[in-house]
Amino acid sequence: MTHHQSAPATATPAAPAVHSRPLAVRDVTVTDAFWHAEQELVRTAVIPYQWNALNDAVPGAAPSYCMHNFKAAAALNARKDSEGKAFVPPSYTFRGFEALPEDPANPDPDTFYGFVFQDTDFSKWIEAVGYSLAHHPDAELEATADAAIDIVCAAQLDNGYLDTYYILNGMDRSFTNLKDHHELYCFGHLTEGAIAYYEGTGKDKLLKAACRFADYIDTVFGREEGKLRGYPGHEIAEMALVRLAETTGESRYAELAAYFVRERGASPLYFMDEDRRRAQQDGTNYEAREQNYAYYQAHKPVVEQDEAVGHAVRAAYFYSGVADVARLTGDSDLLAAARRLWRSIVDRKLYVTGGIGGTVDGESFSYDYDLPADSAYSETCAAIALAFFARRMLEIEPKSEYADVMESALYNTTLAGMAMDGKSFFYVNPLEVNPVACHRDSRLRHVKPVRQKWFGCACCPPNIARIVESIQQYAYTLADDGSTLFTHLYMGGEARATVGGTPVTLDVSANLPWRGDGAATVRLGGDAAADGADGATFTLAFRLPGWAGDESAAAAIRADGEADGRVGRVVADGYVRFTGVWHDGDRIVFDFPMPVRMVAANPLVREAAGKVAFVRGPVTFCAEGHDNGANLHLLHADVDAILADPHAVAVEPCAFHAGAPGMDDKGLGEVDDVTRDMVVLRVPAWRETADGEPAARPLYAAYAPARREPATATLIPYFAWANRGETEMTVWLRA
Amino acid sequence: MTHHQSAPATATPAAPAVHSRPLAVRDVTVTDAFWHAEQELVRTAVIPYQWNALNDAVPGAAPSYCMHNFKAAAALNARKDSEGKAFVPPSYTFRGFEALPEDPANPDPDTFYGFVFQDTDFSKWIEAVGYSLAHHPDAELEATADAAIDIVCAAQLDNGYLDTYYILNGMDRSFTNLKDHHELYCFGHLTEGAIAYYEGTGKDKLLKAACRFADYIDTVFGREEGKLRGYPGHEIAEMALVRLAETTGESRYAELAAYFVRERGASPLYFMDEDRRRAQQDGTNYEAREQNYAYYQAHKPVVEQDEAVGHAVRAAYFYSGVADVARLTGDSDLLAAARRLWRSIVDRKLYVTGGIGGTVDGESFSYDYDLPADSAYSETCAAIALAFFARRMLEIEPKSEYADVMESALYNTTLAGMAMDGKSFFYVNPLEVNPVACHRDSRLRHVKPVRQKWFGCACCPPNIARIVESIQQYAYTLADDGSTLFTHLYMGGEARATVGGTPVTLDVSANLPWRGDGAATVRLGGDAAADGADGATFTLAFRLPGWAGDESAAAAIRADGEADGRVGRVVADGYVRFTGVWHDGDRIVFDFPMPVRMVAANPLVREAAGKVAFVRGPVTFCAEGHDNGANLHLLHADVDAILADPHAVAVEPCAFHAGAPGMDDKGLGEVDDVTRDMVVLRVPAWRETADGEPAARPLYAAYAPARREPATATLIPYFAWANRGETEMTVWLRA
Repeated sequence: MTHHQSAPATATPAAPAVHSRPLAVRDVTVTDAFWHAEQELVRTAVIPYQWNALNDAVPGAAPSYCMHNFKAAAALNARKDSEGKAFVPPSYTFRGFEALPEDPANPDPDTFYGFVFQDTDFSKWIEAVGYSLAHHPDAELEATADAAIDIVCAAQLDNGYLDTYYILNGMDRSFTNLKDHHELYCFGHLTEGAIAYYEGTGKDKLLKAACRFADYIDTVFGREEGKLRGYPGHEIAEMALVRLAETTGESRYAELAAYFVRERGASPLYFMDEDRRRAQQDGTNYEAREQNYAYYQAHKPVVEQDEAVGHAVRAAYFYSGVADVARLTGDSDLLAAARRLWRSIVDRKLYVTGGIGGTVDGESFSYDYDLPADSAYSETCAAIALAFFARRMLEIEPKSEYADVMESALYNTTLAGMAMDGKSFFYVNPLEVNPVACHRDSRLRHVKPVRQKWFGCACCPPNIARIVESIQQYAYTLADDGSTLFTHLYMGGEARATVGGTPVTLDVSANLPWRGDGAATVRLGGDAAADGADGATFTLAFRLPGWAGDESAAAAIRADGEADGRVGRVVADGYVRFTGVWHDGDRIVFDFPMPVRMVAANPLVREAAGKVAFVRGPVTFCAEGHDNGANLHLLHADVDAILADPHAVAVEPCAFHAGAPGMDDKGLGEVDDVTRDMVVLRVPAWRETADGEPAARPLYAAYAPARREPATATLIPYFAWANRGETEMTVWLRA
Repeated sequence: MTHHQSAPATATPAAPAVHSRPLAVRDVTVTDAFWHAEQELVRTAVIPYQWNALNDAVPGAAPSYCMHNFKAAAALNARKDSEGKAFVPPSYTFRGFEALPEDPANPDPDTFYGFVFQDTDFSKWIEAVGYSLAHHPDAELEATADAAIDIVCAAQLDNGYLDTYYILNGMDRSFTNLKDHHELYCFGHLTEGAIAYYEGTGKDKLLKAACRFADYIDTVFGREEGKLRGYPGHEIAEMALVRLAETTGESRYAELAAYFVRERGASPLYFMDEDRRRAQQDGTNYEAREQNYAYYQAHKPVVEQDEAVGHAVRAAYFYSGVADVARLTGDSDLLAAARRLWRSIVDRKLYVTGGIGGTVDGESFSYDYDLPADSAYSETCAAIALAFFARRMLEIEPKSEYADVMESALYNTTLAGMAMDGKSFFYVNPLEVNPVACHRDSRLRHVKPVRQKWFGCACCPPNIARIVESIQQYAYTLADDGSTLFTHLYMGGEARATVGGTPVTLDVSANLPWRGDGAATVRLGGDAAADGADGATFTLAFRLPGWAGDESAAAAIRADGEADGRVGRVVADGYVRFTGVWHDGDRIVFDFPMPVRMVAANPLVREAAGKVAFVRGPVTFCAEGHDNGANLHLLHADVDAILADPHAVAVEPCAFHAGAPGMDDKGLGEVDDVTRDMVVLRVPAWRETADGEPAARPLYAAYAPARREPATATLIPYFAWANRGETEMTVWLRA
C-alpha cells in the first residue's frame, strides 16, 4: 500500500480548500451485491436480535437490562409526578461498574442493572433502526421503535437529564465521575440515535429529548464561572454535538463540542482533580488510584498531542470530534493536531487489516510499530471509529489517502467483526490465530478463535449495525458550496444531491470489492432535465483508489464529456475532478486495475519481519487451516515466483460456503449455512517438511535448511475468516 | 543439541541399575577459573548482601523483616515462658499476602511483616552460608550465623512448630491454608538450610530444630485417622524430608515425604476441600475462588500426570521430590511418572537457555512448544529447580541427557540471573529484549531490560547463592554400592570419595566452559597408597557431553590403564565407565570437541521458526545491541556460509568488560567494572538495509527482497548479557 506516504504528495497541484458533508442516508440507495447483502443481514438478523437483547429476551445471552432501566426510571418519574412533589433522588451508592441482580430472571423493578453505560444499547439500536427505515420502510419496526422512544423519553428528568444509571442510583453524584461513568458518552450515543431516527423517519420526539439533554449539559459544563470544566471520559459527545448543531442549526451545541475538544487535557487536569475530590468524598487514598490519563487522551491538550495513545475507540472517537470542530471552526491548530494524529496512526500504528489498537491492555494503541499479530486487540469498534475519523478528514480535505484507509477499515476489520449469518461477533480481531494457544494461553484470553454471541458489554455488534446501515454516508460527500459531488467509495446504487444548483442523480454500478470496473450515469433533474436543456455545470469528483496505483487509476476512469471538451479533468490528491457541462445520461466509466499486491510491513514492525500479506483492491486476505492444513507457520509464500510473474497468484471467483456446528450447548462458534460469492487467491507457496512427525523430533537440533514441498496457499478475504469452524488463521505468511 | 532425543538410545548396552548420591560439599573443592570465580562472587558479594537484606539494612531496597519476625516470635515465646503459663496465641487475622508497616523504618516489634514465606530468607541464607563454610572457613561469618540460629530457634514453639507468620498472626489458623500460605515450604527451606549448615560446620542446633518441626508435621499429616490429608502448597518439603532422612537415618521423614508425594492430587482434592472450608469460615463464596489446582500440580495424582504444568518452580521442586522418593522406595510408578514429566519438559517445554516456564501468568509452564522469546518468564529459580530435578534423575540412572540439561540450566539461565558484580539479579530471563517494548508495553511488565536490586520477594538471588555454593554436588555422585564414582560435570578441583573400598582423590583440571580439554589424576589413599601396593579396583565413570557428539566424545577420553589392559571401558547412556585396577597417579585425559553448534528449534516452536541459535559446549550465546547495533531483528545469520564452512564462525577468547552506570538514583542497572575471561563468537551475518531511515518509510509497501549488507554478528555468552547497560538482546537470530 504505497499510498500511505509519510508526507503529503507535493508534485500534484493543491486542491481547492473546500469542505464537504455526507449525503443524507435517505438520499443514497445501495443496491450492489456486496453492501446490499450486508445491509440486509443487519436489517433482518442483527436489528431484531439487538432489540431482543436489550429487552433481555435472547436465550443463553447475558441480559442487557437496558429497557428495564429505562422503564424503572420512567416509573420513578411517574410516581414523582403523581405525588406532585419535587423529585428527591435516592442518595448515591456505587454498586459496581456492572451491577447484576442476584436472580437474573427477577430483577428488582426499581433498580439499575448492567454497565454504567447500558443506556447506549438502546441508542445504538435506534440509530441502526433510523438508518434502516431511511432506506427500507417497515411500519412494524417503526411502531416498536416509537414505543421504545416513549419509554426512554418518559425516563428523562424535568431538567433534561437522561442517564438511568444516576437517575436510579442517585442524582447527587451525577457528573462527579466523568472519567469513568460514561454519562456524556450515553448522551452522545443518544444524540446520534435521535438524529438517525429523525433523519430516517422525520419524527423528532427523541431528537427533542436529546436537545433538552444537550441544553442541560450546556448549563453544567464550560469555562464560565460556576460551571464544571469537565469533559467526557469516553468521547463521542463531541461529534454528536457537532452533528446535532448541523441538524438543528443551533450553534450552542457546536460551541459546547468545541469546548469539550479544547478543554480536554488542559492544566490543571480535570480528571486528576475529580479523582482527588472523589477520593476525598469516599475516604479512599488518591495516590493509589490509576492515573493513566493518556488512556483517556486527557494527558495534555490535543493541540500538543502528536501520538495516538490510549484506548483506541475513545481515541478515534475523540479525533473524529477534533476533526469536526476543526472543520466547523477553521481552527488551524486543531486541524494540524488532527493531521498529526492521523499520521501517527497510519504511519506507525495501523494494521494491514485496517484495525487499530494493538494491545489488550486498556484496549489501547501500543507504541510505534508494535503491531502484534496473535495478541492483537484490534477491536471491531476501533476500526469503525477509524472510519469515522477518516471520513471526517475527508470532509475537511478530500485526499484519497483518507478514503483508502477508511475503505480498508470498513471492508476488513469492521466486517470481520460479524459472522456471515449475522449472529455472532468478534470484539477482538487478531491477524493470526492458533486455537490451541487461545484455549491454553491465558495471555491470549482476549483472543477468541470463533465469534461470540452478544455480550453484556455490547459495543461492537451494534456498532457494526449502525455503520453498515449508514454505509452510504461513507461513499459520497457534497461540497459545502454545492459545486462538487465527491465519490469516495464505489458502490452500486443511486446518490441524489443538488450539485451546482441542479438536482443530480448519480446512478452507479460497481463490482467492488471483487472487480474494479463499473460506471456512473448522470441523471439531471429540475430545469436541466427539461427537453432541450443545454445540460448543467458542476463538478463530479471520483477517488482514484490507492490500491489501483495513482497513475493507473487516473487512466482507468473517463467521463463522456471529456472527448468533446465539455468536461475537463483535474487530478489532485488522489481524486479526479470532472468539471464542465453535463448532459443527462452522461456516463463516467471506470475500470480500476485490481492487482494482487504482496505487501511487506515497515522493517521496524518486528512482528511482521520476513513476512508478506496479500491484498487485492480494498480486501486483505488470510490463510485458514480449513484450506491449508495445520501449522500455517510452516507455509511460505514463494515470493521469488511471485516477483518473477505478477500473475503467479491466481484470482479465483468462488461461491464461499459458510457454516459451522456449535461447539457447545450454547452454540459457541455456530454459523448457519450461507453461501456468498467472493474471490479467493491461489498463491504459489512451499511448505517446510521433514522426516516423520515434528512431535517425534527433538526440541533442538542442528540447523538444516528446510526441505521444501511445493504447495498452493489458498487465501480467503480476512472478513470471511472463522465462518467454517475453529481453525488456524494467519494474515502474514512467511516470505 | 541432538542429544535431546525423544526416546532413550537403545543401541548401547543397558547400564547396571545402580543409584548414586552426590559427594558432600566438603569433600569436593572447586578451584577452576570459572566456578571458583562464581563461588567467590557469591561468598564475597551475595552472602553479606543477603544478610543485610534480611536484617533490613540494604539502603534503597525493600526491607525483608525476616529477622525482625524471628525476633518478634522469640520475644513472644520468652514472655510466655517468663509468665510461666500456657501459650495463648492471638486470634488469627489475615493482613494480606504481604504485610507492610505504615512506616517502614518503624515496624511494630510484635508484628509480622513481609510475605507469608518471609522466614525462608533466613533459611536460604543459612544454606548458602553452610556450603560456603564447608569449603571456605570464616569464623566471623560462622559466629554471625550461630547468633542468627539462636534467634530462629528461640522462635520455635514447644511443639516444634516454627513459622513466624502463624506464630505472630494466630496459631488457630495454622495449617488451614496449605495451598497458599507456605508453612510447609518454610519448613522445607529451613530443613535444607539446617542440613547445609550441619554439613558445613558440624553444628546441629538448627538441624535439631528442623527435626522437631518435622516430627510435629509428622503428627499432623498423614493417612492415619485424625490426621490432615494435606500436602504442601509450594513444594520443597518432599526433597527436604528425603535429605533429612538420609542425613539423620530417620526413616519416618522419608515416609512423610513419600506420603506428601503420593497423596498430592488424590481424590477428593484436599485443596478443594480446604478452599471450601476456608470460604465457609470466612463467609466468602467458594465458587468465586481460583480453582486452578494444576498450578500446584495437584489436579491429579502424580502417577497419572504426563505433562509438566503449573508454576514452574513448584513443579520442578515437586518432580525433584518425586524422583527422590522413587529412588528411595524403588516405586516404579513414581519413576515412570518422573521420566514422563522429564520428557514433557525436555521434548516440549525447555528453552535453549536451559530455562523453563514460558508464561508470566502463574510463572508457569505454557502449552507444548510455546516458548516465547520476548515475553518469556523463564524464572531463574525455575532453571535452578530444573537442575535439582536433573541431578535427582541422574542419581537414579546415570544418563548423560540429564547431565546435559542440568549443565545447560546451570551455565545459562542460572548464571544469567546474577550480574557479573553479584549485585543485581534477574528473576525473568527473556531470550529477546527490546528495551522500548519493556518500557512501553504493559504486557511485558515482567520483563526487565536490566537486572534489579534485591526484591521483597527474594527467591531468585538466594537460590543462585545456594546452588553456586554447592555446585560441587552437581559434579560428582558415588554409586550406593561404592563401586563407581561418576563425574557429571567437568570442573577443576579435587573430589574425595571411598570407591571400591579405597579412599580416592580425583584431581581434576578442566577449562570448561571455554575449552573441552582437561585431565583427572587418580590419587589413592589407605592401603592402596602404601609402597608396593598393586593398586585398587573400582570404576570411574565420566560423562560424554552431548555437545561434543556421542562418538566423538567417547574417542576423546582415555585412561592410562587402558593401554596395558589394566582398565577396560564400557560406554553406555552417554557415560564411559573405566573399570579395572588403578594405580596412584593414573590419569584420565580428555579433549572433548567443542564445535560451535548452530541449532534450530523443532518446527512446532512457532516463536523460533526460521531462526537459529548458537551454542558452544554448554554455553548458549546471544547478540546484544552493544556489539551489533540497533534493530537486531534485521540481523540475519548467514546460515549458508556457515553450513558451507563449519569454521566460518570464529571463536575468539576475550577479556569481557562488564560495567554500567546506574539509570536512576537507586542505581537501577548499575554494574561495577569487572573483567572476566570468556569467549565470544563472530558469526557471518547480513543486515537488511534500505534507502533512508526506516521511520521515514511507509508502514506498508510492496514486498521487495531485502537489500543485504554483509555483517559480522558478535555473540556473547547468554549468562553475560545485560552487564554493560540497557540494550537490545536476542538469542535467536533470523536464518
